[in-house]
Amino acid sequence: MINEPNLQVRVRRIPDGIPKVNDLEIVAGAVVRPGPGELLAKTIYLVVDPYVRSRLSGRHFDRQPQPGDLMLGRTVSQVIESRVDGVAAGDIVCIESGMQQYAVVDGSDVIPIDPTVAPLSTALGILGMPGLTAWSGLCVLDPILPGETLLVTAASGAVGSMAGQIAKLSGARAIGLAGSDEKCAWARDVAGFDACLNYKTSDWSAELARLCPDGVSVYFDNAGGDILNTVVKNHLAMYGRVLICGLIAQYNLKDAPPGPNLGPVVSRRAQIKGLVVYDFEDRRADFLREAIPWFQAGKLHYKEELHDGIETAPAVFSRLMSGQNFGKTILRVADDPTVKG
Amino acid sequence: MINEPNLQVRVRRIPDGIPKVNDLEIVAGAVVRPGPGELLAKTIYLVVDPYVRSRLSGRHFDRQPQPGDLMLGRTVSQVIESRVDGVAAGDIVCIESGMQQYAVVDGSDVIPIDPTVAPLSTALGILGMPGLTAWSGLCVLDPILPGETLLVTAASGAVGSMAGQIAKLSGARAIGLAGSDEKCAWARDVAGFDACLNYKTSDWSAELARLCPDGVSVYFDNAGGDILNTVVKNHLAMYGRVLICGLIAQYNLKDAPPGPNLGPVVSRRAQIKGLVVYDFEDRRADFLREAIPWFQAGKLHYKEELHDGIETAPAVFSRLMSGQNFGKTILRVADDPTVKG
Repeated sequence: MINEPNLQVRVRRIPDGIPKVNDLEIVAGAVVRPGPGELLAKTIYLVVDPYVRSRLSGRHFDRQPQPGDLMLGRTVSQVIESRVDGVAAGDIVCIESGMQQYAVVDGSDVIPIDPTVAPLSTALGILGMPGLTAWSGLCVLDPILPGETLLVTAASGAVGSMAGQIAKLSGARAIGLAGSDEKCAWARDVAGFDACLNYKTSDWSAELARLCPDGVSVYFDNAGGDILNTVVKNHLAMYGRVLICGLIAQYNLKDAPPGPNLGPVVSRRAQIKGLVVYDFEDRRADFLREAIPWFQAGKLHYKEELHDGIETAPAVFSRLMSGQNFGKTILRVADDPTVKG
Repeated sequence: MINEPNLQVRVRRIPDGIPKVNDLEIVAGAVVRPGPGELLAKTIYLVVDPYVRSRLSGRHFDRQPQPGDLMLGRTVSQVIESRVDGVAAGDIVCIESGMQQYAVVDGSDVIPIDPTVAPLSTALGILGMPGLTAWSGLCVLDPILPGETLLVTAASGAVGSMAGQIAKLSGARAIGLAGSDEKCAWARDVAGFDACLNYKTSDWSAELARLCPDGVSVYFDNAGGDILNTVVKNHLAMYGRVLICGLIAQYNLKDAPPGPNLGPVVSRRAQIKGLVVYDFEDRRADFLREAIPWFQAGKLHYKEELHDGIETAPAVFSRLMSGQNFGKTILRVADDPTVKG
């Protein structure tokens, strides 16, 4: 039925650093007919996504593509032939078709697109996966509240601009980071951010501290790397939240960066929380109501390292900090009146 | 009234690396009388805590002590003279008295101790701040559930052993890490951990992977450093939680470690969460119910970078990954049927 070739983008070799043009190649494949439960669709819009780079490095949680494999890519496509219930030829769908002109895909992962509500390409942007990403983070996983301050990287990108606009629609303040003055101007003047800082040319950290003396309530991170490190170090508000969505600064790296690599925090959907016991002082009575009966029932054991005399403190402190202690290190400074000699 | 000297431990100089004995000095002070709202107490037990090391480096969120200052330390003390309502001479109290034999403290921060329920020194350990720390983490901040697996560092320490025992009492599995075979044996045989690995001599990471093929549900971290990095990299269960309580591996360091330094996550009581949009696929309809009206009301703006033809994909991907794109990068592979030419 379709005799024209099906141009495909395939992996020629795994990129080293920033991908080069000839790491990929264009290959003429054939147009295949759909089997039962499949559909054949013609690509209209194909999105080129940074996360594909991390998959090429084998660092995404999904499988690493190999040389010869079709490059990954989501598309807005028009159905040519359908053997999927509820999908008809002519329908507009969003599918993971890979980078090619025609694709046969399984019917189980097809998102129908209503072509009347917005331009088709928005199904790959603010009304598609990137929009859903920003909304999931700021409206479901960790809702941003009126009066809070959002900081988002890649502020002119699809996820970043949507995050900022959702923050504004939620009554919060939106501050962006972006890599050019042009992007910053767009984020401010078109997308309505309160501020957007060029992290390549400005002293953005000092400027951010001026804009947010009390820190950032929610940091929606698409960047990772030095920006993440600086925000965590200097700009979190008390009880601030960091949503790690993308770590694009790491995608071109051959090895994982030093220190805790937060990539697995994303892939494992993990959470890291700071625990400060002073915040729970008002729960001390509740704690003892549970713990004293445990202790008296013989269910709690403990180990102490007792030293006698205040004069031993300097040596004991040195010993403790070199990791030689075993159990809680306690000095007996005076006789214990509850212990009979 | 009290004519004997009051031996005190003072900071002689800020330690460089592991504290040396002569970084501190013993000074004979005087015993002072309490003013209104104060009490005078005699130290019975003084706890020597690692967190004091981080304060000496100025990295704790509280103020950095200076040479000549009294060393910090919590004590179980007996009240000698009280000008605080509700506290009488002879009472046993837990106070922040500093490292000295006698202390005058303000009455606002006094924790009364019932000397009949447990040995006095437990008020500095499992029934005191360390116990409250473990309980706050595992019973309040992020409750551990029956059937889950806890991993805790410094398993024979006060916080660590309490964390493991609370996990067991909650129906969870408790696995410890500790720095000697003796500590590991104690954690297993006395405190009832399911397993405890010596991180100094064993291939603990491989062993942990064998013990927990599905990963660790809650990692209660008192260590930081390489152990934290390895657990985050290799051992988190899906939806795993990391409670960062102490970063003792960093306390002796002069400079902050490379990569994201999670110290401020603790002091800011912050949370870091991984966001994976695929988890929110079932909310897509809810998202569009909100976002389409926003779009149609002109409240959502977006920026695209459109390229024509599948053949441009290799160059566009390279351009994207070198950060030159502006807006969502989309290839127009075929004519858009909704756009009139």
